[in-house]
Amino acid sequence: MTTTPTRRLPESLDAGVALVGPALRETVIRYLCPEMGRVAQYHHGWTDADGRPTNAWGGKLLRPALALLSARAAGGAPASGVPAAVAIELVHNFSLLHDDIMDGDTARRGRATAWTLFGVPPAILAGDALLTAAVSVLLDSDSAGARSAASSLLTATQRMITGQAVDVDFERRTDVTLAECVAMAGNKTGALLACACSLGADLVGADPELVRRLAAFGEHVGLAFQLIDDLLGIWGDPDRTGKQVGADLRVRKKSLPVVAALNAPGSAELSTLYFRAEPLTDQEVRRVADLIELAGGRDWARDEAARQITAAEESLAAAGIPDAIRGEFLDIAAFITDRRF
Amino acid sequence: MTTTPTRRLPESLDAGVALVGPALRETVIRYLCPEMGRVAQYHHGWTDADGRPTNAWGGKLLRPALALLSARAAGGAPASGVPAAVAIELVHNFSLLHDDIMDGDTARRGRATAWTLFGVPPAILAGDALLTAAVSVLLDSDSAGARSAASSLLTATQRMITGQAVDVDFERRTDVTLAECVAMAGNKTGALLACACSLGADLVGADPELVRRLAAFGEHVGLAFQLIDDLLGIWGDPDRTGKQVGADLRVRKKSLPVVAALNAPGSAELSTLYFRAEPLTDQEVRRVADLIELAGGRDWARDEAARQITAAEESLAAAGIPDAIRGEFLDIAAFITDRRF
Repeated sequence: MTTTPTRRLPESLDAGVALVGPALRETVIRYLCPEMGRVAQYHHGWTDADGRPTNAWGGKLLRPALALLSARAAGGAPASGVPAAVAIELVHNFSLLHDDIMDGDTARRGRATAWTLFGVPPAILAGDALLTAAVSVLLDSDSAGARSAASSLLTATQRMITGQAVDVDFERRTDVTLAECVAMAGNKTGALLACACSLGADLVGADPELVRRLAAFGEHVGLAFQLIDDLLGIWGDPDRTGKQVGADLRVRKKSLPVVAALNAPGSAELSTLYFRAEPLTDQEVRRVADLIELAGGRDWARDEAARQITAAEESLAAAGIPDAIRGEFLDIAAFITDRRF
Repeated sequence: MTTTPTRRLPESLDAGVALVGPALRETVIRYLCPEMGRVAQYHHGWTDADGRPTNAWGGKLLRPALALLSARAAGGAPASGVPAAVAIELVHNFSLLHDDIMDGDTARRGRATAWTLFGVPPAILAGDALLTAAVSVLLDSDSAGARSAASSLLTATQRMITGQAVDVDFERRTDVTLAECVAMAGNKTGALLACACSLGADLVGADPELVRRLAAFGEHVGLAFQLIDDLLGIWGDPDRTGKQVGADLRVRKKSLPVVAALNAPGSAELSTLYFRAEPLTDQEVRRVADLIELAGGRDWARDEAARQITAAEESLAAAGIPDAIRGEFLDIAAFITDRRF
C-alpha cells in the first residue's frame, strides 16, 4: 500500500509510530539471528546495507495503527495491542520481501530492494524469519486472546498467499471472470487489512462479534483501496502515482477495471489488443484505456469503491465502539482511500 | 535427510506412514488454495506436474513417525500426535521447497524440483503456504498443549532458518570456528529433529521435563546425523551416497570435519588449497581429503558422532518412558545414523 500523502497524516498514525516503532525493532532483534536481523533491519529502513543507522522512511505503519485502535475499540489499554501491531507489520514485511523477489523489483521506497543487496537466499530466509517471528510474538504475549489472534493472523496470511498465487496464475489466463478478480483482490489486499483492523481486539479477548465487525470494516476498506489503486494504475497522474501513464496496461495486468471491461459486452477490440503478444505503443495504451472506459470498467470500479466505503462505514457503525475510536478508524480509512482518480 | 536405506525400515515408520500420510494430504487440500495445493502435492510426490496421481516416493516420514512416538511416550493415544506429525512434516517440506530455490537444485528424490516446473514465485509461495498451514494445524487442534506446541514449532523453525542463514554466510568466510560450525549444525539439523521427537508430547500436554528430555534426544541424534552425513560427503562410497567422490570438497563446503581440520595445528596446506579460487582437480580432492584426515578432522567427527549418540541414549533413558516406546525411538535413531563411514 503505497499511498502518496495527498493530505495530512491522521494523528493516530503518530501514536502508532511512537508505540510500535521501538517494539517492532526490539522484536526483530530478539527473534532473528544477526544475519537475518541485518537483512530485516535494512528492509525496514532502520539501517543501510552495512548495518549503519539511517533515517530512511520505513513506511507509515498504517496496519499497526489500525491494530492498536482495534485493541482500544475492545476496551484495551493503548499499549495492549502492541503485539498485534508488531505481528501484522512483520507479516506485511515478510510479504514485501518475497514479493520483491517474485516480481524482480529492484527498488522500494526509493531504496534498493533487499534481494538485490544481500542476494536471493538471504532475502527468502529473512521473509521466512519475519513470518515465523510474527506468530511467535502473539503466542509469547500473555494476552487472553493470544491463541485466537495467532490463528486469525495465520488465516489472513494464508488468504494473502492465495491472492498472490491466483494473481500469478492470472498472468497466463485470458478468461478471468470479474468474480474471480474480486475474490483475488479480497484475498490479496482485503485479508491483511481485515486482520489489521481486528487483531488487537482479538488479542485482548474481545467478543467474537466485535472482532468480526472490525474485520469486515477492514476487508471493505481493503477492497476500496485496491479498486482505487487499480484506477490510478490506468488513469492516475504520473506526478502523483510515481508510475508511468498506463503502467498497469503496458504489463497487461488483470486489474479490476480491466477485468470488468473484458467481461462486458462489446469488448472484442479491447480483448484483441490486450492479449496480443507484442508491446503496446503509447497510442495503443491510450486506446486500451478508452476502450476500458467505453466498456464501463472505469465507472464500475468507481461505483464499486464507493459501495465498499459505504459498506465499511456500516460495518464499523454496527460494531458499537466509542465515537472517538470510530472517528480514528475512519480517518485512517479516508487516508488510505482518499486519492484523486 | 536423505538416508539410503541400507537396512530394513523400522516398523514404527510403517505406522507413521499409514496414520500420517492421509492426514498430511487432507491438510494440504484443506489449508492451501488449489494453485498452491498443486505445487505442494507435486512436491510431496502425490501427483505429477499436471495434477495426475503418481506413485512417486514422498520420503520416509521419519519426523512424523518420531512425533507420533513422542505423543505415545507422554501417554497419548496412537493418533493423538497426528497434528504434530503433520505440522513437522509440513515445516520440513516448506524448508525443502525454499532450499531447492536457494541452492538452484533441479532434482530431488529423482524428480524435477518444484521451482523448475512451476516457476520460482509459485514455489516460494507454496513454501510460505506450508509453513503457515503447519502452525494452523496445531492451533486448530483441540489438544491441551496446542499453544505450547505451536510456540515450540516456531522456535525450531526460527532456529532452522538461523542455521541456513549462517550456513549461507559461511560461504564467504575463511575463519569459521568449530564452535560456530557445531552451533550451525545444531540449528540447521538438530532443531527440527529435536522438535519432531518432542512435539507430540508437547501437544498432548506432557510434563515440560519430559518434553525437554525428548527434545534433547532428538537434538543429539540430529547432530550425529549431520556429522555422519558430512563424513559421507567426503569419504562416502558414491554407489551408496549417490554423490560424486568428495562432492562436498569440490564445492568447498565448510562441513564439520573440514572446519575441525582447518582449526587444527598444521593446516596451512589444507587452508591454501581449500580457499583457492580455482576448481580442485581429482588428485587435489584426494589430497584435501587426506589433509583433513591427517589434521584429525575425520577422527574428531567420528568420535563426536559417537558421543552424540551416547548423549542421545542417555537423554532418552532419563525421560523415563516405557521400554517399548524407547525401543522404537532407538530403532529410528539407529536407522537415521547407521550408515557406514
